[in-house]
Amino acid sequence: MTGADMALRAFDDRFSGLRSSDDALFEWRVKSRPIGNVTPDDFEWSQGAIPEPGDGEVLLKTHYLGLAPVMRFYMQGTGAAGERVLAPGDVIHGRGVAQIIKSRHPDWREGEMVQGQLGWRTYKVSAMTAQEKFFRMPRNGLPAALGAGVLGMTGLSAHAGLFACGAPKAGDLMVLSGAAGGVGSMVSQMAANVVGCDVVGMAGGPEKCAFILNHGCAAAIDYKSEDIPDRLDALRPDGIDLYFDNVGGETLEACLERLRMNARIVLCGSISEYTRETPFKLSNYTRLRASDARMQGFFVYNHLPRWREVMDEMTGWISEGKLKPVQDIIDGFQNMPRALANLYYGQNVGVQCCSVRGEPSDWG
Amino acid sequence: MTGADMALRAFDDRFSGLRSSDDALFEWRVKSRPIGNVTPDDFEWSQGAIPEPGDGEVLLKTHYLGLAPVMRFYMQGTGAAGERVLAPGDVIHGRGVAQIIKSRHPDWREGEMVQGQLGWRTYKVSAMTAQEKFFRMPRNGLPAALGAGVLGMTGLSAHAGLFACGAPKAGDLMVLSGAAGGVGSMVSQMAANVVGCDVVGMAGGPEKCAFILNHGCAAAIDYKSEDIPDRLDALRPDGIDLYFDNVGGETLEACLERLRMNARIVLCGSISEYTRETPFKLSNYTRLRASDARMQGFFVYNHLPRWREVMDEMTGWISEGKLKPVQDIIDGFQNMPRALANLYYGQNVGVQCCSVRGEPSDWG
Repeated sequence: MTGADMALRAFDDRFSGLRSSDDALFEWRVKSRPIGNVTPDDFEWSQGAIPEPGDGEVLLKTHYLGLAPVMRFYMQGTGAAGERVLAPGDVIHGRGVAQIIKSRHPDWREGEMVQGQLGWRTYKVSAMTAQEKFFRMPRNGLPAALGAGVLGMTGLSAHAGLFACGAPKAGDLMVLSGAAGGVGSMVSQMAANVVGCDVVGMAGGPEKCAFILNHGCAAAIDYKSEDIPDRLDALRPDGIDLYFDNVGGETLEACLERLRMNARIVLCGSISEYTRETPFKLSNYTRLRASDARMQGFFVYNHLPRWREVMDEMTGWISEGKLKPVQDIIDGFQNMPRALANLYYGQNVGVQCCSVRGEPSDWG
Repeated sequence: MTGADMALRAFDDRFSGLRSSDDALFEWRVKSRPIGNVTPDDFEWSQGAIPEPGDGEVLLKTHYLGLAPVMRFYMQGTGAAGERVLAPGDVIHGRGVAQIIKSRHPDWREGEMVQGQLGWRTYKVSAMTAQEKFFRMPRNGLPAALGAGVLGMTGLSAHAGLFACGAPKAGDLMVLSGAAGGVGSMVSQMAANVVGCDVVGMAGGPEKCAFILNHGCAAAIDYKSEDIPDRLDALRPDGIDLYFDNVGGETLEACLERLRMNARIVLCGSISEYTRETPFKLSNYTRLRASDARMQGFFVYNHLPRWREVMDEMTGWISEGKLKPVQDIIDGFQNMPRALANLYYGQNVGVQCCSVRGEPSDWG
């Protein structure tokens, strides 16, 4: 049993026997701030009465929640990334899909399906503030679960990072890290199937490498068993036009050494850096000079004004078969901490989500 | 006497008594590779016969040579930046202004003034290869010396960095390091007077700060006596739209902490890093994310195809008074090593050049 297996097993041992039910409110709260990676001790399960909406409020019933690497930073009280900073005892932030089951709000009707900031809870009373960023789910015939990922913030991240930030062109020699992850599995497909880029993807292990070859990547690098610089030399002998970075660290440095003229690096995530004791320091940023290259970051909330337009475009690509939605759905609200831990141990393929009430994932 | 004064005095003590003359060839060669900063021991003065041009060649007589920070890397054999890597014994690379005094080349006439790769020598026989990047000097009534800097590679660097890379807009809250230097003194004027940016400049010492306030900067930070983060907080309380970086290191990190939405960082030079024992490592590159900001490098030779267009544009700005050409001209070929050392000790104001034959700087 590997260290990752043991770490994940600890979540199952502690939490998988818990059960939520429809007749009460269940929540996951920050018990203590994670030091390094998350452990079961950082999470607290709590139960209470279903709240009643006041005037101007609605009662939301949560169906799906998405998991994102940023959530550990929420719990740590650092890098709240557009959300309120959490203290121990607070319900953890999380976006997902819910149904309005009572409404005393003039703009929102009972029965409507929405997606937005729900937090890790099975019911929520909300005044539907701008801060919570709620959107009505489109009636597009696709599974509602997609609103917790592919047609949610994960999808907006992938779209904004690739198009607004990466400015991809047909024929671009592209490299993508985290290619089997939530954002990565969407970026690879859109880059290859919509734009016509030539994508080399990185993922961990033979199964994920087989997966990414079936989702837009023309070639795969297994970062767990292969030497990344050597494989980049072999697969990208003419260099890199576009590097979409989900991992940071030495992988970013390796790509910085191989930039073509006017290359672009998209800074999406740095998951390899998140568990380091001290911040990673980039030794070769000046490599951007020789080839007039740029490194650009983005933050998904900055792109919210384009929400509807982006979702419509991606829905079209799904219906055309250019974008296969891939979500890794874990069943049961009790498994939320485990689902989050999956991200840091690279267990998920596609967008990691939780089906809070165990509905089938094609419930729409 | 400061350490810088003593270091520079050593150059004068060793070399200022030397004299070149028109009846022989004089050259400066790499004696030994500089370790850290340049010292007089790294340079070798040599004398020989004026060479004769062969068929398809010209004889060039050097009048002005420009100095650039990259020259120490040429001498060290690292980072040749588009030029041939030098070995000890080689003549040091350097661009400047010369007159063709004999021609056996069909395309170049005797008497023509040119600028290009001459090397640190008083005469050069050349086949005028593409590698040497020779351009005819425009007949614009301006001093020929400008071809060694303001209307040479320094000017092209300033223009490409600011416009092609920085994409400045009127009203941009800008910060510029190395504002009194060759590139910096041009960037500040073009940004303020051509584009309409609000420029905070950094320079070392009260004289240079007074200079930059007279050359485009609305406010000055004296990096030698003031705390840069504190001063940035005071002068850029709303953050930075555009940071033009000539110095790298902690100054770059301080600006990364203060980026506004869609901010741009132009990586032009990293002179603060050049004398470090170990490479500087950037701790906060991920700050580019929160504000959808980008960091972009450029290399001046990539912009050579636009040479004539850029020079014509800048010549127009000079004639309109928007761009005051500032060159710091040292007299006498014997003072080339001292002129180079000036750059690393921050002695120059404007573009550091050498009048090889002691002509008046407005010789045109």
